[in-house]
Amino acid sequence: MGSPVNRVSMGDTWSRQVHPDIERERHVQSFCVEELTNILDGGAQNTALRREVESIIHSDPELSLKDNYFMTQNERYEAAIKKKFHVQMLAQRLGWSEDSRELYYANRSLSGDLGLALQFVFQKALRSLGSEEQIAKWDPLCNKLQILATYAQTELGHGTYLQGLETEATYDAATQEFVVHSPTLTAIKWWPGDLGRSATHALVQAQLICSGAQQGMHAFIVPIRSLEDHSPLPGITVGDIGPKMDFDHSDNGFLQLDHVRIPRENMLSRFAQVLPDGTYIKLGTAKSNYLSMVVVRVDMLSNEVIPLLQKACVIAIRYSVIRHQSRLQPSDPEAKVLDYQTQQQKLFPPLAKAYAFHFVAKSLLEFFHRSYSSILDRDFRLLPELHALSAGMKALVSDFCVQGAELCRRACGGHGYSKLSGLPSLVTRVTASCTYEGENTVLYLQTARFLVKSYLQAQESTSQRSLPQSVAYLTAPDLAKCPAQNVADFLHPELYTTAWAHVAARLIKDSVHHLQTLMQSGADRHEAWNQTTVIHLQAAKAHLYYVTVKIFTEALEKLENQPAIQQVLKRLCDLYALHGIMTNTGDFLHDGFLSGAQIDVARKAYLDLLLLIRGTLPMRNT
Amino acid sequence: MGSPVNRVSMGDTWSRQVHPDIERERHVQSFCVEELTNILDGGAQNTALRREVESIIHSDPELSLKDNYFMTQNERYEAAIKKKFHVQMLAQRLGWSEDSRELYYANRSLSGDLGLALQFVFQKALRSLGSEEQIAKWDPLCNKLQILATYAQTELGHGTYLQGLETEATYDAATQEFVVHSPTLTAIKWWPGDLGRSATHALVQAQLICSGAQQGMHAFIVPIRSLEDHSPLPGITVGDIGPKMDFDHSDNGFLQLDHVRIPRENMLSRFAQVLPDGTYIKLGTAKSNYLSMVVVRVDMLSNEVIPLLQKACVIAIRYSVIRHQSRLQPSDPEAKVLDYQTQQQKLFPPLAKAYAFHFVAKSLLEFFHRSYSSILDRDFRLLPELHALSAGMKALVSDFCVQGAELCRRACGGHGYSKLSGLPSLVTRVTASCTYEGENTVLYLQTARFLVKSYLQAQESTSQRSLPQSVAYLTAPDLAKCPAQNVADFLHPELYTTAWAHVAARLIKDSVHHLQTLMQSGADRHEAWNQTTVIHLQAAKAHLYYVTVKIFTEALEKLENQPAIQQVLKRLCDLYALHGIMTNTGDFLHDGFLSGAQIDVARKAYLDLLLLIRGTLPMRNT
Repeated sequence: MGSPVNRVSMGDTWSRQVHPDIERERHVQSFCVEELTNILDGGAQNTALRREVESIIHSDPELSLKDNYFMTQNERYEAAIKKKFHVQMLAQRLGWSEDSRELYYANRSLSGDLGLALQFVFQKALRSLGSEEQIAKWDPLCNKLQILATYAQTELGHGTYLQGLETEATYDAATQEFVVHSPTLTAIKWWPGDLGRSATHALVQAQLICSGAQQGMHAFIVPIRSLEDHSPLPGITVGDIGPKMDFDHSDNGFLQLDHVRIPRENMLSRFAQVLPDGTYIKLGTAKSNYLSMVVVRVDMLSNEVIPLLQKACVIAIRYSVIRHQSRLQPSDPEAKVLDYQTQQQKLFPPLAKAYAFHFVAKSLLEFFHRSYSSILDRDFRLLPELHALSAGMKALVSDFCVQGAELCRRACGGHGYSKLSGLPSLVTRVTASCTYEGENTVLYLQTARFLVKSYLQAQESTSQRSLPQSVAYLTAPDLAKCPAQNVADFLHPELYTTAWAHVAARLIKDSVHHLQTLMQSGADRHEAWNQTTVIHLQAAKAHLYYVTVKIFTEALEKLENQPAIQQVLKRLCDLYALHGIMTNTGDFLHDGFLSGAQIDVARKAYLDLLLLIRGTLPMRNT
Repeated sequence: MGSPVNRVSMGDTWSRQVHPDIERERHVQSFCVEELTNILDGGAQNTALRREVESIIHSDPELSLKDNYFMTQNERYEAAIKKKFHVQMLAQRLGWSEDSRELYYANRSLSGDLGLALQFVFQKALRSLGSEEQIAKWDPLCNKLQILATYAQTELGHGTYLQGLETEATYDAATQEFVVHSPTLTAIKWWPGDLGRSATHALVQAQLICSGAQQGMHAFIVPIRSLEDHSPLPGITVGDIGPKMDFDHSDNGFLQLDHVRIPRENMLSRFAQVLPDGTYIKLGTAKSNYLSMVVVRVDMLSNEVIPLLQKACVIAIRYSVIRHQSRLQPSDPEAKVLDYQTQQQKLFPPLAKAYAFHFVAKSLLEFFHRSYSSILDRDFRLLPELHALSAGMKALVSDFCVQGAELCRRACGGHGYSKLSGLPSLVTRVTASCTYEGENTVLYLQTARFLVKSYLQAQESTSQRSLPQSVAYLTAPDLAKCPAQNVADFLHPELYTTAWAHVAARLIKDSVHHLQTLMQSGADRHEAWNQTTVIHLQAAKAHLYYVTVKIFTEALEKLENQPAIQQVLKRLCDLYALHGIMTNTGDFLHDGFLSGAQIDVARKAYLDLLLLIRGTLPMRNT
């Protein structure tokens, strides 16, 4: 770590003094910042609690993040493990329970830079897939950290397509054991966190073979390292997969199994059992397993994705009011870069997205909880919509968060390239979220399948069932042309929500039409699907954008008792909707819904909003 | 470096065996790969020379890159310095001269991972700004590495706007010295390569003050480290600016000068002198200095920017034919991911760009050399166009190369996140090129200023001067509507080049119109410019895209003697042009130049091209 030469030392020159340019900006407010903070935190009580936790975390020298950027991968890993134990002890001492807000805030203020994150994933899987006896045996071992566990699903050659996983677990009735084995190079488990150096046990997803028959994917608890000296057990080859674009603190690993024998009891058996003689018994379907995938995608938006965009916006916007460059007028001093229209164009759309997605994630979580109650009552009607919405929204939000964070980074010029700005690691970390928990293209196409089905359902005049709420617009009356004539018209939430619904409905219709045309011309169903996926992607993205605009406008309506906040958020909502139109003008012009002249008016509305948000146009002008 | 645990070891398992899936792909060729390789290298002789150099570099254990991803920043730095000296000795032994193709290929095959790169920049500046005596004194010291020099311009608070630089050099006639000083925190030199640890001398750009008058920016040679023990000299605070998003091997540094005295002779004095008594004498203007900025931007495209996209395409496309995932048909084995339309949509447009930009960079370089000859003859007429084109093209090409490299990276799923895929560092390195040598937004706007001037010139009916070639389309006859009716029509280079010219001309007209309207409504010139920059950006991008399409089509025309190569490159050219239309449909629909129905036809042409390029449609079908 120590370099023999001078280095930028954050420790020594760290200053809490606020730059006078920022101070001045903070004096011109059109709303109460504390009030908005409380809304984002979900209440003043949460704000207070968050600040309390943050002050504990930030004042604890054991939890300092200051040297992070100067550490090697090894050092980052060790620090993350130490911090994990430190936080664990802190939680014990302060009485923060496992699912508490306190621990959530602690984790957030440490940017998730803690080791052994997979222990919890293992436990979640155990609790939903294991029998009562299995839970009783393994869960306490995890809680007391007597074992360190991980979740091993992805393989070197297999990820998205679970049926393609190659790892095998073959039952041997003679010894009442499973033989867990990686038959090929591509079958090696690859990527699981905590696997590279830490884990003693892995929950291995493998193809079950018993009595000579393939029974599909099941979960097995496989001990991989000695509890005595932490060395790999016989038949186990395990290690770190090496350096990544980020997540240095995590020991993502590989695991090759060479006919490793585990007792019959180690197959998680809530939904399926193998009897001692090798008879396979199915005990139901793991709907809860399916639901857990949904909740992970919803949760990750608030916990791992959106905060990275939020932080990037804060850093870049603050920088843009202290950085001066060139002159707007020859006689003036150098201008703040935020006063350039191009800088506002870079930073305000990501800012609007950060707010939009806050409300989107909140709304999705509420929808999840509503659906969850029905599902517990064995009413699965909401499941397809919940799945389509959570999959697609994970894709849309993570895509835009990466794009926005990178825009923020580049808006800071050279300094955005220095890790010390914080921006490079926000970008390299958030970009991972486009791949993990479902690759985004695959997820968009899951939404698209739901849209195709919904569209066909809407076409069936005999259908008595009403459409799921998020696609209800497919049967709503539609205008052929947008009535907007002036700038003010484009600032009506109903107008732009309707415009987005129009475009989404047209694109979905278009995608179904292309699919059907191809099939009618002789292509088979699968081939026709593949050859229209680019069109389906476009439709899914428009639909999801519509949903986000709608959620944002609905969130605004609920703020009618806080008019100053409502006003400032409405500007961001307007900007969000109009920026979407500006970057997709072709979709609105295609069928003449908007004319070229209307696009120009919308652009005027959009450019005016940049000034309004900057506060250069009179604030109470709209 | 050494980790105590298993790690992925490239050294041990490195295999030169070609994967059978790739082998099979290589058997279905519609053209001679060697022929295309020769075209890209600029002749078969160059291909042979490049391979010879590559084999020398790759077989030299001292120049191995294998452990790069496992090294700390310090280790990378040390390795880069060692490699630099090793290559220097190699060059001496093999007779590779300073500007030779051999050294160019050597550097390219080492991915530029060499230390002391700024020595050459210092020497270039010295040779163009120094007097003959100064060159005679300093140049040999650099060549023999008796001094290590860097070029220090950018400051902590100042980059793009050179007039804003704060470092001062005040002449003291009493001692015949300059006092070089950083008056503020923001005046600290920040970012120069080789400054952090290596350099003994810096060429410091500073505001000259003599006889009490400010004389603007001049260049001074400042000794910064002892030639005895390498410690910083009195008044010098110098060090490494810390970790960056990439370029670990480079010791980008900071330099704070506290009234450092240097002899009068250390001001570079080809174009300006300070006499012993403090009299300032201007000896001409440094046009060559201006030209050197242009040539750097042109050169960097071929040397530092486009190769990164090329490599990313190679890695991602090869990966996509060995990675199998899901089934296209339920009865089929898992399909190669490159057979999915969405994967083709991710990878083929960047591939088309890699080829387009190869020809763009070549054409720009030729234009530079043509202009350079006239400029040496004191004919500066081509300079504005050369400046506008090189600035804008640097921006457009680097923007698209980043976008394309990141698309390639994400197209490889999780493996694209592993540094061992090579993709993360291609992305984190190429993204720097959007910022260095001119921030892209600033560069686009320089092109935009040229476009506004050209447009106004085209409007002056009295003007007898013809427009510069790249904007000649502003006075060409224009169609109000595109005549294309079917897929084949959209595959005519003349058709899509004309379409791009139409859109560029319309957007330039639109931007000038907005600028003039604002000024007529009372805004002053500077304010009006700022409030229309978003519109100017759009116009500049369309213009630059038009130029790239035109260059690519012209390059194709020259290949008429190689019809198989011409055919395969034409597909990429078509894809390049149509992908540009598909991602900017609004610009083509806005004034009815294309109708919605025509856009659908263009999309069909575009989607068919994906299949053609993949080789799934019969190869000789067009």
